[in-house]
Amino acid sequence: MNGRLEVAMRHDRVSTIHGEVGTLSRDAVYQTIFSRRDIRSQFTKQHIPDEVLARVLYAAHHAPSVGFSQPWDFILIREEDIKRRIHASFKKANEESTSLFDAEKQERYRQFKLEGITESPVNICVTYEKERFGPVVVGRTIDPLMGPFSCVCAVQNLWLAARAEGLGVGWVSIIHEDDVKEILGIPPSLMLIAYLCIGYVTHFPAKPELESVGWLPRVPLSSLVHCNTWGGRISEAWQTLYTSIQNHAGFPAEDGSDGK
Amino acid sequence: MNGRLEVAMRHDRVSTIHGEVGTLSRDAVYQTIFSRRDIRSQFTKQHIPDEVLARVLYAAHHAPSVGFSQPWDFILIREEDIKRRIHASFKKANEESTSLFDAEKQERYRQFKLEGITESPVNICVTYEKERFGPVVVGRTIDPLMGPFSCVCAVQNLWLAARAEGLGVGWVSIIHEDDVKEILGIPPSLMLIAYLCIGYVTHFPAKPELESVGWLPRVPLSSLVHCNTWGGRISEAWQTLYTSIQNHAGFPAEDGSDGK
Repeated sequence: MNGRLEVAMRHDRVSTIHGEVGTLSRDAVYQTIFSRRDIRSQFTKQHIPDEVLARVLYAAHHAPSVGFSQPWDFILIREEDIKRRIHASFKKANEESTSLFDAEKQERYRQFKLEGITESPVNICVTYEKERFGPVVVGRTIDPLMGPFSCVCAVQNLWLAARAEGLGVGWVSIIHEDDVKEILGIPPSLMLIAYLCIGYVTHFPAKPELESVGWLPRVPLSSLVHCNTWGGRISEAWQTLYTSIQNHAGFPAEDGSDGK
Repeated sequence: MNGRLEVAMRHDRVSTIHGEVGTLSRDAVYQTIFSRRDIRSQFTKQHIPDEVLARVLYAAHHAPSVGFSQPWDFILIREEDIKRRIHASFKKANEESTSLFDAEKQERYRQFKLEGITESPVNICVTYEKERFGPVVVGRTIDPLMGPFSCVCAVQNLWLAARAEGLGVGWVSIIHEDDVKEILGIPPSLMLIAYLCIGYVTHFPAKPELESVGWLPRVPLSSLVHCNTWGGRISEAWQTLYTSIQNHAGFPAEDGSDGK
């Protein structure tokens, strides 16, 4: 960066790293990660400037990809009629989904707002092209899912860059791939990875909605970390890691700080 | 954040957003995204403090997950004997992989260093548990891959948090799932998502290695962006987006800036 990045914080929270790229602000990255949300209800119609979309797309394009295959494409949708057709497809898939829950849960499920297709100013469809630079790609020789996984890394880069731009993103997962491909004219050989809604928001909720409403709890991180092998949690050498995880139990606080 | 984040930059590059979480530094996020690398050859043996690992794992744990299912686990491996067994498994899979390339490419392929399993101080295996909070999960009712995709988002969060901490990460994709599950004692019902190597590095290369050595070129972003439907690139209303993409052709520059 040409400019200097000066971080003035409490002494115990100064945390910058020095590398050949200059000085990075570690805490800004954590704050972005922890305050990112799946947005469905908070979109505004505010126009997204093209240069902002360009930056966010460059962030996606610089995700890791297996064998540097960059197998993604991005279809940006602003056309209202196309959004309406996508929304109708969501509604159909959501009806099918509702019936899969227990009777008791169906009523609560129906109250969730699970997409912001028509409210968001731009939708972005991310696809995977298996044949790009193929058929043999470095690193994709054993696990064919490495290609789609690369595209998911691009989605997460886009999501975080959007958050840093003040843009919310929602991932519409309740939709049939065949419908999306037909509506958007995507060639049969490509795979749908993600259908995203993006836009400025009234606010970013402090917590994920399904956590706030008590649908599911946040799992304690310490129960998800294993040492050397599955279930390994007794080694003395690892005790300090658990202590560190426990010490960070308030990390992040709602404001993105470490909660101290 | 409790502290104030003050960003002193050239006037035309000031870019902070204000929200309920405080002030984020947009450029720090972009710099992290653009300077992240898949690290294989640059690991040092420097110890990773437990509190750093704890922060990076919290970043992973705060990835988006379908229906807030948080379906990931993290096995951290420091034990040299386990790393050696994983490395032997990689070597076997890499031999199989080599034979898939044309004779002409095999020699170049053999020269690539595609993992840093034993050189990195810590390996992290990320898994997917389908039955967590299942069998029916909000948003996973139509596409079963949404579960594994959530875990990939966790990997990318971990990767970016690590970069912001000055840590390199490499994704070992040339390995058989069954081998990893056997060596680490992972239950059969779980799915291997990623086997990662993590550690401090001598440096972060300016570009992806496969780009630097001329194996594959960076694809121009403008060729990957479509308007409203697949192949849509002629609408006048979209011309400004392409102009913006072209104007950002130097974004990022090697130093993470916009190249101006």
